Amino acid sequence: NHGKYTQVEMKDNQIRSRDHCTSAQRFRDAQTSRDLKELAEWLINEKKMKVLVEPEVHQKEFPEYLAFDAKSLGNQDLLIVIGGDGTLLYIVSLFQGGKSVPPVLSFARGSLGFLTPFQFADYKSVIQKFITPNERHLVAIRMRIVCTIYRYSEKLLKNDNIKEKEKKDTDKDKETSPSLERCSDDKQSANSQSSSMLDKQWSQLCSYFGEQRMKEYTLFGEYHALNEFLLHRGRSQNMIHVNLHVDNNKITAVQSDGLIISTPTGSTAYSVSAGGSLITPNVPCIAITPICPHTLSFRPVIVADSALIYVTVPWVSLFFCLIYISIRTHKFLWGEKNSRLCPEFSFDGRPPISLSYGDILVVCQSEYPVTTFKGSPYQCEWFSNLVEKFNWNIREIQKQIP
Amino acid sequence: NHGKYTQVEMKDNQIRSRDHCTSAQRFRDAQTSRDLKELAEWLINEKKMKVLVEPEVHQKEFPEYLAFDAKSLGNQDLLIVIGGDGTLLYIVSLFQGGKSVPPVLSFARGSLGFLTPFQFADYKSVIQKFITPNERHLVAIRMRIVCTIYRYSEKLLKNDNIKEKEKKDTDKDKETSPSLERCSDDKQSANSQSSSMLDKQWSQLCSYFGEQRMKEYTLFGEYHALNEFLLHRGRSQNMIHVNLHVDNNKITAVQSDGLIISTPTGSTAYSVSAGGSLITPNVPCIAITPICPHTLSFRPVIVADSALIYVTVPWVSLFFCLIYISIRTHKFLWGEKNSRLCPEFSFDGRPPISLSYGDILVVCQSEYPVTTFKGSPYQCEWFSNLVEKFNWNIREIQKQIP
Amino acid sequence: NHGKYTQVEMKDNQIRSRDHCTSAQRFRDAQTSRDLKELAEWLINEKKMKVLVEPEVHQKEFPEYLAFDAKSLGNQDLLIVIGGDGTLLYIVSLFQGGKSVPPVLSFARGSLGFLTPFQFADYKSVIQKFITPNERHLVAIRMRIVCTIYRYSEKLLKNDNIKEKEKKDTDKDKETSPSLERCSDDKQSANSQSSSMLDKQWSQLCSYFGEQRMKEYTLFGEYHALNEFLLHRGRSQNMIHVNLHVDNNKITAVQSDGLIISTPTGSTAYSVSAGGSLITPNVPCIAITPICPHTLSFRPVIVADSALIYVTVPWVSLFFCLIYISIRTHKFLWGEKNSRLCPEFSFDGRPPISLSYGDILVVCQSEYPVTTFKGSPYQCEWFSNLVEKFNWNIREIQKQIP
Amino acid sequence: NHGKYTQVEMKDNQIRSRDHCTSAQRFRDAQTSRDLKELAEWLINEKKMKVLVEPEVHQKEFPEYLAFDAKSLGNQDLLIVIGGDGTLLYIVSLFQGGKSVPPVLSFARGSLGFLTPFQFADYKSVIQKFITPNERHLVAIRMRIVCTIYRYSEKLLKNDNIKEKEKKDTDKDKETSPSLERCSDDKQSANSQSSSMLDKQWSQLCSYFGEQRMKEYTLFGEYHALNEFLLHRGRSQNMIHVNLHVDNNKITAVQSDGLIISTPTGSTAYSVSAGGSLITPNVPCIAITPICPHTLSFRPVIVADSALIYVTVPWVSLFFCLIYISIRTHKFLWGEKNSRLCPEFSFDGRPPISLSYGDILVVCQSEYPVTTFKGSPYQCEWFSNLVEKFNWNIREIQKQIP
Repeated sequence: NHGKYTQVEMKDNQIRSRDHCTSAQRFRDAQTSRDLKELAEWLINEKKMKVLVEPEVHQKEFPEYLAFDAKSLGNQDLLIVIGGDGTLLYIVSLFQGGKSVPPVLSFARGSLGFLTPFQFADYKSVIQKFITPNERHLVAIRMRIVCTIYRYSEKLLKNDNIKEKEKKDTDKDKETSPSLERCSDDKQSANSQSSSMLDKQWSQLCSYFGEQRMKEYTLFGEYHALNEFLLHRGRSQNMIHVNLHVDNNKITAVQSDGLIISTPTGSTAYSVSAGGSLITPNVPCIAITPICPHTLSFRPVIVADSALIYVTVPWVSLFFCLIYISIRTHKFLWGEKNSRLCPEFSFDGRPPISLSYGDILVVCQSEYPVTTFKGSPYQCEWFSNLVEKFNWNIREIQKQIP
Repeated sequence: NHGKYTQVEMKDNQIRSRDHCTSAQRFRDAQTSRDLKELAEWLINEKKMKVLVEPEVHQKEFPEYLAFDAKSLGNQDLLIVIGGDGTLLYIVSLFQGGKSVPPVLSFARGSLGFLTPFQFADYKSVIQKFITPNERHLVAIRMRIVCTIYRYSEKLLKNDNIKEKEKKDTDKDKETSPSLERCSDDKQSANSQSSSMLDKQWSQLCSYFGEQRMKEYTLFGEYHALNEFLLHRGRSQNMIHVNLHVDNNKITAVQSDGLIISTPTGSTAYSVSAGGSLITPNVPCIAITPICPHTLSFRPVIVADSALIYVTVPWVSLFFCLIYISIRTHKFLWGEKNSRLCPEFSFDGRPPISLSYGDILVVCQSEYPVTTFKGSPYQCEWFSNLVEKFNWNIREIQKQIP
Repeated sequence: NHGKYTQVEMKDNQIRSRDHCTSAQRFRDAQTSRDLKELAEWLINEKKMKVLVEPEVHQKEFPEYLAFDAKSLGNQDLLIVIGGDGTLLYIVSLFQGGKSVPPVLSFARGSLGFLTPFQFADYKSVIQKFITPNERHLVAIRMRIVCTIYRYSEKLLKNDNIKEKEKKDTDKDKETSPSLERCSDDKQSANSQSSSMLDKQWSQLCSYFGEQRMKEYTLFGEYHALNEFLLHRGRSQNMIHVNLHVDNNKITAVQSDGLIISTPTGSTAYSVSAGGSLITPNVPCIAITPICPHTLSFRPVIVADSALIYVTVPWVSLFFCLIYISIRTHKFLWGEKNSRLCPEFSFDGRPPISLSYGDILVVCQSEYPVTTFKGSPYQCEWFSNLVEKFNWNIREIQKQIP
Repeated sequence: NHGKYTQVEMKDNQIRSRDHCTSAQRFRDAQTSRDLKELAEWLINEKKMKVLVEPEVHQKEFPEYLAFDAKSLGNQDLLIVIGGDGTLLYIVSLFQGGKSVPPVLSFARGSLGFLTPFQFADYKSVIQKFITPNERHLVAIRMRIVCTIYRYSEKLLKNDNIKEKEKKDTDKDKETSPSLERCSDDKQSANSQSSSMLDKQWSQLCSYFGEQRMKEYTLFGEYHALNEFLLHRGRSQNMIHVNLHVDNNKITAVQSDGLIISTPTGSTAYSVSAGGSLITPNVPCIAITPICPHTLSFRPVIVADSALIYVTVPWVSLFFCLIYISIRTHKFLWGEKNSRLCPEFSFDGRPPISLSYGDILVVCQSEYPVTTFKGSPYQCEWFSNLVEKFNWNIREIQKQIP
């Protein structure tokens, strides 16, 4: 019962199904559970498919369906999502560490979204169509962007009580941001960006920042985003202060509440709130949008998808010394100061982690895009969504001045 | 040696002088200390005045000068500031709890600012001019706005472990935001907004929200801001969600990164970064500017200085129940959830405190404006600052298309 | 049958009534004619009032009602408008030349507007209420702004064929912009701004630009606007290039598609389209908003209603000489060039006239505001209109990220 | 002496050289003439090349150099421009009617521009480098967009005095916009878009708008733009009112001052003034930016370079009838009304022509891009220009709040 897709071939019958993503929401939303059950039964009984569900769903609600685990991620033929754009965003963000995302078929149960063009009520006909062999399907291959963070080696700061304080802070971050950590754990695995990519990236960094300097850096984490990466001041009252480099040139110093590096898919999310333009998903580009910039002229910039973007958190060396003295004399806490002046990093709505002085973030196009099934060709769905979701350019028609 | 001012009469010779506001900065900036000493000696020896300095400055650097204390605040004749706009903003923010701010004379040591029109190098002639009797002076009376926070009574949540968790959170806030707490302590004193004002406000609240509901509320704090009040999502990835009421009408529901309620003085600060217009300080108005709003059409709004603004943090009662169930069953932490969904509140760049469900914020014009000495009449200083600080409308002149 | 108003006392029973403003629209809209007749009959027969109508309406449709003429303008007790905000704007713009506008009562026949809070269906009860003696009424006193244009004396350019070409152009302007001309004719009459005002203005100009220079200038026209004054490039592909002065200081050089100087009432019209903030009508201020400025940092500015604004069209003297040479040698047409480089001037949606090199525009608060009856106190009507007319901050509520 | 270029091979030695574009400017700028002469002599004597100059330059200043004519356009190997971005824009706009533009080498004599990366002072070394055989060169291939206008057939309106009035208007347009007309004349020639392209376009139009309707349409003109197409209200006080279709779907109705359809190259020109994002020239996309839109939510949209955009000027049929009646009865002039309600069309800063009711504009990527030589790889020149030309994100660095 193999189905042919425009982009991918089904390898076996494994199909994962998933409902809303948190316990709280699932409690509120018994209907999703019923829908999930109905869909799964139909897939198993009628279509003779294998169904895997999210581990939490397996454990708490549906022990009768197998759970997929981190290792099996990426081996499925189809990813079915019940819920809105936010649910799809969440589930796709599980595919970190360089894992291919199976083609995604997403069903809305309320209003349709930018990423969810089908109604759940039609699931039978929609799925039947997509698993029919030799059928051509409409898909959007949505670019993701990848951010690799390099951190100044910890050795240099060791034996230092400052460091311990900071470490505790980071631990706390870990507690409150499990998913982000889960992702960064994957960096250990062999499944991340192809090593040739990383090697190339490393040599570019060495050639740009100097080999001597890069010796002190280690890989901290790697994150793939479908919508955007976000640097933000968080709770601090200070603006972030980072440097932006594009294609091996320092472009500008960013002083702002935050900085968004977004895909076209993400242009309708955070970026547009911050003043960015709306970009149809088929434009191969990356949008750089500041949040509440210190200057009045920091207009958003759109670069090609081939651009290599570095964001660096500057060492404030003089400041560092002064802080050091302060610590000695006034019990000034490094960690506290640190969390105030270093931006927080996040992606696709995940809980943030704190960056450190000297961090280098490398952002470029990901090798692992996301394929979503579409209901119609071209971009008309996207434009309809602009109108429906944003009231884009909607107003009563003005009569002419006579 | 009494000096006459346009606005105030000097009651005695007390003049306070003050330099940069934190230890860290003072360490960096030995020049400020020298300037402070020079100025103080000149005032004492040449002008026979009494000089009070900030307690910290008294304790750590200049025991020879008296320190002013919280109680004496507001009894001085002149407030001299050495530093930029940020320093003035900080020192003025000490005058909470309904204390009149003495007229402020501020000296810049680098580039002039919106609030600091004089160079320190000229301090002798400037001060001499301002303390000459029967001389007319140019001053700007800058409106401040006051925010009174009313919180749902704690009794209803007592005996509840949720509460304790929250309390601990608040305690932590206290630690990291000493100044904000210091202000709110003043609410106990008799020096806050005149009680007739508060009585009037209370009866307005009762008439608008219902007397029954208001019975459960207590006064939580009162804050006077020269620049702006800020509600912000902080570290949370969720937008804030508050309701905005003006003059006893619900205006709109705000979903955004944050909300700025700003004076004209503050229009050149955070508000302009978020897309607000620039407003000369003599326009009697309050600007309401959203930060990264969820809608594309949430343009900033400017209301009269007579406007009575309520911002309410809605009770999400259904959600509350679900959370309660979650706690029972899944050890879901209220405090954590709370800090994610309630906005953080701050003013004039101070560290934030977390608001709670049901909080009612009343914002209106403060009875205690700030009088600053100006170098020239009208608003030309202000416009020069726009150009100098923001590069406002600066660009090489374009040749015409032939 | 005298009615008392909060602001004005009725002098006699004259009440003017008026429907849509152009023939084209009247043809389309027979209902307005019927409504007008019904209203007029009721006023005359039931309320024993005298009814005057617009001359065109008198001549073409209702010879039975008296027409008001330019001279009688301003002597009526009440101005009744049937139609939307545009109609009110038009009818009020007839009150030029320093004539007081009677209090305006406006009836919408479709959706209500910012200026038209009553439904025509309710006209009997509404009017009855407003003409009841000793009744207190809710009114908004809406500030108007006045622009006085001073032009370089024609003598200096006489005997010059350039001039004739230009004159012809101006004549053409006159044809296509009858109403604007009608207004400027009024400058001859004694009814314009009180001569003391003009004298004061003149001496300010002399003191700022120099008496010698002002000797060459004559008064060209005076215009009162309820919404805004507009300078615009019109058909030219060149940006306008004018200088902006506030309170006797040159503020900036404006290079843009246009420049809007707006009242708070006008902040919801052209100004908001160009990026201006929304301002409630009770804020005493003037908004200056550029249209598509050449710089990225030219953010709108809001000044006090007491501000004295000059906009000057610079002499490009070197350029002038070159053009003169060009004319001699290459038949280059001055008039054409002129119309390309001088901005066009307009107000409240009227047809534009071309400005000339050296023109000085003086803009300040008008002595003749417009009083409109309101349906409710405060600004809640205004906010409802924002939502209804602009979909201001309207969008489906976003669920929180879990 | 053949030079190899990355993109093109030199066919012979013809090199055209050109200075500023109008008489007026040339008069002002004798230096350009001297530079042109110096360059030409060097090319002829030292490099043994053939030099062609613009016909006007040939006729008025340098009869010793051959003039190129319209027919020879496109057969040269190199196009040398002395002047700024505006000059390059002008000279490239001569290559209409589907003619390939030779690679462009542009020299600035003042500050460098987005399109002019070389100083004239270095012309010898720069040119020498670019004509050296087997050398690799850095070029930017800049996309142009093409607009084909289809107009409702004139037959249907013939014998109608309305038509004559309109015709006269158009004639007047012709006078004042020679260059635009010159371009549209080229539509007659066989050199326009390849006929297969036009055939394909026509069948798409027929399939979308209906074959019956398209029968009444004829090709009116074809324009290739390097920066942008502009629809604008011009002198009219009415907003334009057109419909926007993308990829065979009606997207939205546009009510605004104007509409800009821009290339990435043009994103730093008019589009950014109207609020568009800045786009590096290597992003394959088309930006759609409204000017002062009637709605608050009409954010700019960026579509792929493969997008097929239709802009239609709607028939206002009911209105048309009413106007017709008005003409009969009130001498209402159609032409006048027409010029008020139909938008004006322009491109790359050219004088505008008036569109007519029913016009269909088809905009897509042009088959004839412009190749410009660059001084350095990647986009760093472009970013430097942002900073230099726009003061992009330039402001004194803000000290942190302590």
